[in-house]
Amino acid sequence: MKLYSNRFAPSPRRVRMYAAEKGLSLDVVEVDLAAGEHQAPGYRVVNPLSEVPTLELGDGTRVTESLAICRWLEELHPVPPLFGRDADERREVNRWIDRLMFRLYVPTTHVFRHTHSFWATRLQQVPAWGEQQRTTVLAEYAALDALLAEREYVAGATFSMADIVAFTSIDFGKPSGLRLGEAHAHARRWYEAVKARPSAAA
Amino acid sequence: MKLYSNRFAPSPRRVRMYAAEKGLSLDVVEVDLAAGEHQAPGYRVVNPLSEVPTLELGDGTRVTESLAICRWLEELHPVPPLFGRDADERREVNRWIDRLMFRLYVPTTHVFRHTHSFWATRLQQVPAWGEQQRTTVLAEYAALDALLAEREYVAGATFSMADIVAFTSIDFGKPSGLRLGEAHAHARRWYEAVKARPSAAA
Repeated sequence: MKLYSNRFAPSPRRVRMYAAEKGLSLDVVEVDLAAGEHQAPGYRVVNPLSEVPTLELGDGTRVTESLAICRWLEELHPVPPLFGRDADERREVNRWIDRLMFRLYVPTTHVFRHTHSFWATRLQQVPAWGEQQRTTVLAEYAALDALLAEREYVAGATFSMADIVAFTSIDFGKPSGLRLGEAHAHARRWYEAVKARPSAAA
Repeated sequence: MKLYSNRFAPSPRRVRMYAAEKGLSLDVVEVDLAAGEHQAPGYRVVNPLSEVPTLELGDGTRVTESLAICRWLEELHPVPPLFGRDADERREVNRWIDRLMFRLYVPTTHVFRHTHSFWATRLQQVPAWGEQQRTTVLAEYAALDALLAEREYVAGATFSMADIVAFTSIDFGKPSGLRLGEAHAHARRWYEAVKARPSAAA
């Protein structure tokens, strides 16, 4: 399976990290977003929205949306489970995935897109919006810290897709100056533990 | 099971519509958001983020995040399937759920929050952001119309959770003046078909 990816973008990293945790080998094709390769006609055939990731299957089927890709891979390769081992665990993993996608990942991308110079000539920035979303991200860091004071991983005692969503979102805050700080000791303990996993380098 | 809900909000409507399609009966508790009931101490115990929906189980467990609630109910009540019948169908349903949540639902809420007078005294509006998101919503209406020119429902030949996400998001555009228009004949055919289902009134 071929994964159209970009090394700096959080969405394809979710899929790479998931695949590494599962021991799945993907043929990764780097799409240079900074050079505009995703806007080129060739890649528009692969993904009409010019987004990464796209997973291309052996029969030519192309699958987009990082979480949908991982959910599908989970059905084909259920061990080790990364979306929970039973209905109650899956409920908790899904709950945290959704919460973190909407309250951490999306706001983090908006801070980047609306305050970082990389985007200044690439879209119509609304800096006031970007700064407002910075506050949302910091509130979610605090919520994550409170959560991780009481459990080892985001969705409970076991590493899961919710940790991948949280970790890759936090890392993607770096270009915008967003980092876990002194006040987030529990989240930092968790962050270092996730960072030490081989999949974090995928 | 008790569902803390609000009749105008799109997220609890997703759960109500899903439950109606499955024939599941929920004890719906209306939370008056306009009157600030979600901010009252009593509701903060139910949901510390002051959000709806919250599903309260018989043992007191509280589940948040509309899609996580529906995914969990789907495990307990798999028939009729609303997340697809096999791995490939589930992949397509999940793909469209994610795409529509990020490209239609979230932008629609941002138009409402940042341009509608209801929110003027309730948050710090960034109207330029709201107007930009209006463009995003209209682009997704066009994409949905092109999709529905070629298939009966969003994820294929069968009604699914992806239709519920699309339909409830489109309806939530109304207070912001967002509506399917003359250019969206295929999407309107689909919209009327979904609106005619008894679950649309749930």
